[in-house]
Amino acid sequence: MESLARASLSVCPFVKSTPVTALRQISSQSGLATQARQCPFMNAALKAKESTRTYSSATKPVRAAAATPSGSKAASPSSAYSFKSSDLINSSVNIGSKESTFDYSGFISDLLAQKRTDKSYRFFNNINRLADEFPLAHRGEETDKVTVWCSNDYLGMGRNTRVINEMKRVLDKYGSGAGGTRNIAGHNRHAIRLESELAALHKHEAALVFSSCFVANDAVLSLLGQKMKDLVIFSDELNHASMIQGIRNSRARKEIFKHNNLEDLEMKLASYPKSTPKLIAFESVYSMCGSIAPIEAICDLADKYGALTFLDEVHAVGMYGPHGAGVAEHLDFEEHLAAGINRIRPDSVMNRIDMVTGTLGKAYGAVGGYVTGKRDLIDWFRSFAPGFIFTTTLPPMVMGGAAESIRYQRATLADRIAQQKNTRYVKTNMNSLGLPVIPNPSHIVPVLVGNAADAKKASDLLLEKHNIYVQAINFPTVPIGEERLRITPTPGHGAEISNRLIDAVDSVFTELSLKRINDWEKVGGLCGVGAKDATVIDHIWTDKQLSLLDSDLNPNVFEPLIQPLEVSSGVAV
Amino acid sequence: MESLARASLSVCPFVKSTPVTALRQISSQSGLATQARQCPFMNAALKAKESTRTYSSATKPVRAAAATPSGSKAASPSSAYSFKSSDLINSSVNIGSKESTFDYSGFISDLLAQKRTDKSYRFFNNINRLADEFPLAHRGEETDKVTVWCSNDYLGMGRNTRVINEMKRVLDKYGSGAGGTRNIAGHNRHAIRLESELAALHKHEAALVFSSCFVANDAVLSLLGQKMKDLVIFSDELNHASMIQGIRNSRARKEIFKHNNLEDLEMKLASYPKSTPKLIAFESVYSMCGSIAPIEAICDLADKYGALTFLDEVHAVGMYGPHGAGVAEHLDFEEHLAAGINRIRPDSVMNRIDMVTGTLGKAYGAVGGYVTGKRDLIDWFRSFAPGFIFTTTLPPMVMGGAAESIRYQRATLADRIAQQKNTRYVKTNMNSLGLPVIPNPSHIVPVLVGNAADAKKASDLLLEKHNIYVQAINFPTVPIGEERLRITPTPGHGAEISNRLIDAVDSVFTELSLKRINDWEKVGGLCGVGAKDATVIDHIWTDKQLSLLDSDLNPNVFEPLIQPLEVSSGVAV
Repeated sequence: MESLARASLSVCPFVKSTPVTALRQISSQSGLATQARQCPFMNAALKAKESTRTYSSATKPVRAAAATPSGSKAASPSSAYSFKSSDLINSSVNIGSKESTFDYSGFISDLLAQKRTDKSYRFFNNINRLADEFPLAHRGEETDKVTVWCSNDYLGMGRNTRVINEMKRVLDKYGSGAGGTRNIAGHNRHAIRLESELAALHKHEAALVFSSCFVANDAVLSLLGQKMKDLVIFSDELNHASMIQGIRNSRARKEIFKHNNLEDLEMKLASYPKSTPKLIAFESVYSMCGSIAPIEAICDLADKYGALTFLDEVHAVGMYGPHGAGVAEHLDFEEHLAAGINRIRPDSVMNRIDMVTGTLGKAYGAVGGYVTGKRDLIDWFRSFAPGFIFTTTLPPMVMGGAAESIRYQRATLADRIAQQKNTRYVKTNMNSLGLPVIPNPSHIVPVLVGNAADAKKASDLLLEKHNIYVQAINFPTVPIGEERLRITPTPGHGAEISNRLIDAVDSVFTELSLKRINDWEKVGGLCGVGAKDATVIDHIWTDKQLSLLDSDLNPNVFEPLIQPLEVSSGVAV
Repeated sequence: MESLARASLSVCPFVKSTPVTALRQISSQSGLATQARQCPFMNAALKAKESTRTYSSATKPVRAAAATPSGSKAASPSSAYSFKSSDLINSSVNIGSKESTFDYSGFISDLLAQKRTDKSYRFFNNINRLADEFPLAHRGEETDKVTVWCSNDYLGMGRNTRVINEMKRVLDKYGSGAGGTRNIAGHNRHAIRLESELAALHKHEAALVFSSCFVANDAVLSLLGQKMKDLVIFSDELNHASMIQGIRNSRARKEIFKHNNLEDLEMKLASYPKSTPKLIAFESVYSMCGSIAPIEAICDLADKYGALTFLDEVHAVGMYGPHGAGVAEHLDFEEHLAAGINRIRPDSVMNRIDMVTGTLGKAYGAVGGYVTGKRDLIDWFRSFAPGFIFTTTLPPMVMGGAAESIRYQRATLADRIAQQKNTRYVKTNMNSLGLPVIPNPSHIVPVLVGNAADAKKASDLLLEKHNIYVQAINFPTVPIGEERLRITPTPGHGAEISNRLIDAVDSVFTELSLKRINDWEKVGGLCGVGAKDATVIDHIWTDKQLSLLDSDLNPNVFEPLIQPLEVSSGVAV
């Protein structure tokens, strides 16, 4: 029995992924060995294994080698270093043969060659964004300056004086690194404060900070799927690579639903029993096309079918809502504006989302990621997720600066509004020139090109001829045939430099004979560009919201968090 | 056929993990449907599915729901936001039933309760390490100060003036964040310089920086196993959680070998054909017991059996070798000392390792991780690893500061030597009091306690009564029954504060009646403490090496890297 289990382990993924206790039950109930012999895969594998064993025992090395460690005690950690190469047992199955070893270099250079052939090989641009000359950056030479039009430092917080000063203060006082994991010497007041700020921002009970939101998404989704038996994850087809990786690593059953398509999502939810645990994983703003999820309707479906909701607000935090908490806050704009840091109705959209993940590295201008939610849920992530437990905490200065950035943006509407106005300016003026901006209700300005070579050419031309940096977005970030330039205005991209961008893009489109809106119309449209039945897409920042002033904010958002909200650390702070 | 494949997908892990092309081959060769009917698991599952289907079609909702999206076009991204909750199709299989939804809160609170019961629930200590008073930290109150004895800021670089000044300079000039992924606005001179420094440090062709070494290990091992068909990964049983996660996520076949046990490793290597691609994944210094791998002998085995070598030097970089490149450098100490930044023999240990991963967050005092190796290999990681591609670059100030830290430590032996001398002092004096230090050749001082409750009590007592912070190390970081205090001296932990530590630990051992060396002898020893046949373990820093001076270093290590080494970015820099 034991030997069969061992053999199965290396052959059958089912056995591999089944707990030992469950295997014991199966075996006592129905005879695992007999079952295995009936299995077409296991049976073949077992037969192959038997013949290998015969071969091995003929040449004797496997048995000889096996006898050594099972007979002797395993080396203790302390004595390990005394091993010498001369102690090696001199036996092997194949070493005597003329069989060659695997060609690692050939394998890798083939894959790289393939990437160059299909034009997906990436060349990085050396771009050094200058704090004092935002949005300018220098290239390799400090005198060679370009205007950056594709950074995710959406609000220019990377050069905010309050943030930089707080970082310097913390750096001087607490040094350059955290010095350990959160459990071992790396938990401190900056982590506590940052997680309090994040919980307060999303009006959730607790928050947990990770190295990045890639790690947060991967760690949280992996854990949920690994530990919650029978969980089914419903995932939007345009979800970010970090979510795809987390879902893959969770090994949970997954159902991919069509992008933002409620009918498809509901059909898939409805095909499982009500008692099956379910999770709907989606984003608020999809960064490559700028679309926004129907969050409320997805919450309705989650309620109806008993699913958890996991919302990635990475491209929305700092950017939407009266306090920058994201699209979920934006959907109850007036109420949150009036309430300030206080919570509103229990059935508010923010409250209906079980987990929000977000980043400190885009609109907040620093680095790092996080998840917020109910206290127990966050404590569970804190206690079980290897990607949180076994990694060095972010430096105190980063956490201190990020907390300052969140507080700053919570207390002003000015940057968000300026960013949205600049976005409208660019979109409107590009559209009037027939430049194919993919229609969307958000702050992203994706300009459709339609193939990898032209997208790179356009990007290179903008850089070399017009001193404008807009990276080409190619496969696998977007599907083949939908390559684009992705433009991200900030509050610092006003009319004058916007005009230079628009003229430059217009000139590049002419020089390279790229398709404009009317050309896309002729071929039936793509990504909403030149679609015949296209409806006007309203931005979710309304005209009325864009006319607000900081004096319209509830003064309590300026108050320091004297009483930190509950945090996830499990300690009184 | 198609419907069987779909059904199998949700039931059979084999089918789930098999590429579509392979399934097509299997099916055309031998009839997948017939095979599935012979499989005891699949057959039962298919029968269950059939009965479900009957139930569904009787209540009609699945078919009704399915008809909608297949008949209509998928929502385009642009129109997505116009969806309203009222558009929802009002049909479901189970909604009408009295079946309750999954109890998520109950599930999670049960798991947390279990963790509290088995004493593995973690309480974080609020520790704020003070740059100007190193190794002191304050707790919640600034006046409540403790001496930190368990941080991984092994050399105190977190408070190094050169590093802090460089970080402030970069922060002022380039702002607080990178603003994008490496491909989109986040590649800059600080990334290029840091990767040049790292490649130079390890005398490898190229390097790639990640958010952390957890991410580096996970991303690199995942990618290798996922893309290199039939790869078998041989993994030391004490490997770090990040490597375990990477190997698990790679879904490659794995063989766990006994800790630092060459016989067991060879037996496992020998059981595969020579042509099978193989990778040996191990660490140089195992951080919880301080053991050091027999690196050269493992390289010999790798050569013999045609395996790649993957060496995690996380706890060794900055700490070993004349320039701080780690244990691999230390093993050819004299030659590297003489050579400075130049490479030595092709068969040097550093050169025989295919991949080194390391951290910027421990001895280098910042945050982040990396991998070094041959140019093509690193370019392959750069081009294919989602954990690298889809995440925000570390802030320029972090990369600038880390590069400064590496340069600083490359040009001085003083900190490494002081750290080793302080380690010897603590170990020797503890041993003479019978305090059970787990013997090892490295800079780690693990003091055996043997159960979770006592380890926590000892840690709490040191903190509350003696103002000394040493975190208890419990399961899952170490096996149950091997709980310990893990002490990490630095160059700043001289004789005076070491004496206070030793007295305090001695007093706590008396107060809690914890087992000393002679007590462990009586029960046959554990982890090398009180073992009868124990041999003396020599530290790998020899007496001769400890007497070296900075003037013994080759002056070329002080030279700036005017000609950056080849880097992985694929661009001329």
